[in-house]
Amino acid sequence: MLAEGSSLEKAGVNRSTVEGVLPAAMAQRLGARIGGAAEARFFVAGMSVVIHPRSPMIPTVHLNVRYFEITDAAGEPVDAWFGGGTDLTPTYPYPDDARHFHRTLQAICARHHPTFYPRFKTWCDHYFVNAHRGDERRGVGGVFFDHLRPGEAGLDLEALLTFWLDLGRSLPATYGPILDRRRGEPWGDRERRLQLFRRGRYVEFNLVHDRGTLFGLQTNARIESVLMSLPPLAAWEYAPEWGPGTIEARLMGMLEPRDWVAEVPTSS
Amino acid sequence: MLAEGSSLEKAGVNRSTVEGVLPAAMAQRLGARIGGAAEARFFVAGMSVVIHPRSPMIPTVHLNVRYFEITDAAGEPVDAWFGGGTDLTPTYPYPDDARHFHRTLQAICARHHPTFYPRFKTWCDHYFVNAHRGDERRGVGGVFFDHLRPGEAGLDLEALLTFWLDLGRSLPATYGPILDRRRGEPWGDRERRLQLFRRGRYVEFNLVHDRGTLFGLQTNARIESVLMSLPPLAAWEYAPEWGPGTIEARLMGMLEPRDWVAEVPTSS
Repeated sequence: MLAEGSSLEKAGVNRSTVEGVLPAAMAQRLGARIGGAAEARFFVAGMSVVIHPRSPMIPTVHLNVRYFEITDAAGEPVDAWFGGGTDLTPTYPYPDDARHFHRTLQAICARHHPTFYPRFKTWCDHYFVNAHRGDERRGVGGVFFDHLRPGEAGLDLEALLTFWLDLGRSLPATYGPILDRRRGEPWGDRERRLQLFRRGRYVEFNLVHDRGTLFGLQTNARIESVLMSLPPLAAWEYAPEWGPGTIEARLMGMLEPRDWVAEVPTSS
Repeated sequence: MLAEGSSLEKAGVNRSTVEGVLPAAMAQRLGARIGGAAEARFFVAGMSVVIHPRSPMIPTVHLNVRYFEITDAAGEPVDAWFGGGTDLTPTYPYPDDARHFHRTLQAICARHHPTFYPRFKTWCDHYFVNAHRGDERRGVGGVFFDHLRPGEAGLDLEALLTFWLDLGRSLPATYGPILDRRRGEPWGDRERRLQLFRRGRYVEFNLVHDRGTLFGLQTNARIESVLMSLPPLAAWEYAPEWGPGTIEARLMGMLEPRDWVAEVPTSS
């Protein structure tokens, strides 16, 4: 954990390995294939990174990779899969940053399988959604996937592992250049206010919808680790309204899913 | 709604009446008695008040009263009950404020039934709980009840309504004197920091555990009304530690349920 840094208001890296009994009902919620067994055992190794910069000109970023292994009562493997994702949550509406983030992810995914980026980009657009806010997205997305099993897309365990490790190491390429080019941008109370407002939405997504968080709350995992991703400071405003063309309205427009890889930059 | 007031950083009064179809599964979750019917209709009228003062020396207060009526397919009444509650969430550890709040509630309840305060105080201690934080309470409690039906405790609908209206109008007596006597207390960054930290816990309770909020999220109610109770600004700190005797440790100690009515004030 890094707290109250001059550039990074809060940043954390969380590694965890958890194992335990997996009752049939929980296996079903997890999407684990345990046949007709009443229970199985699970092992999960995961890593999460979240960075909440102080400057509203620098987006928040999140990355998670996880690997599940399910064994039966005799200890024999019965299921295994990779999951993961990384998404960008801007305050100031810089389309260039969303384009850079998505294009870099597209290039990483394309090294492993041509369908990965388009599938996982769409999956991400449907995952980081505040359904209770009229399907408002928490940010401009990225990639997200789950239940990626050996054999999928013709790739064996080793090939999937290589992709997964690439994704787990992607932040310097996806996020590093954004951090560098926005670090010196001036900002004031208006940008900070919008950032705290958007962080409120981030809190809502994580506590109401995020599967990893709810899994953690239900499994009595270490709570400070489960909630590490919450922002250091967040605000709620009652029914704000923004005129067309304001930075607030432009940001909200950017949250609508779109094809960041294909589009040609405009002057905006 | 009152936002960014000089004394009250955020305050809201929410009145709502909602009616609709009540499927059997939802009836079961609500605790409505609809016999073996596949569905019924519900009508609910409720009022909520929440006050988040700017000064950490003044506690946050919440009050809700609600009345449910269930009718069958022919429009005949099949169930009806009152629910409600009010609880106090201090930052600065003033035991006198918790005593005043509870004693005033005890006096209001005692005018209607001798068992109401002890039952509803205990119910409250078990309701406003962050189970995922080792059963930490969100504040010093107050009273909470649900499914208070005509005939209960020998009281008819009119008698219960009188109690319920008394509770709905209790804030000037329970909270007014606290607001008045703490308004002028000086405070600084340390008290503000603790306030924002406790507000983070308030957010966690409302989004993860509060039945009214979850009911609102599931019924597509107007979201700004459902989430009106969220604080204007809240903070999360990673695993803070406080020495014994500090205001932070004294506050945390105050959150353990205890008999505020019976105890004799000490010098603390």
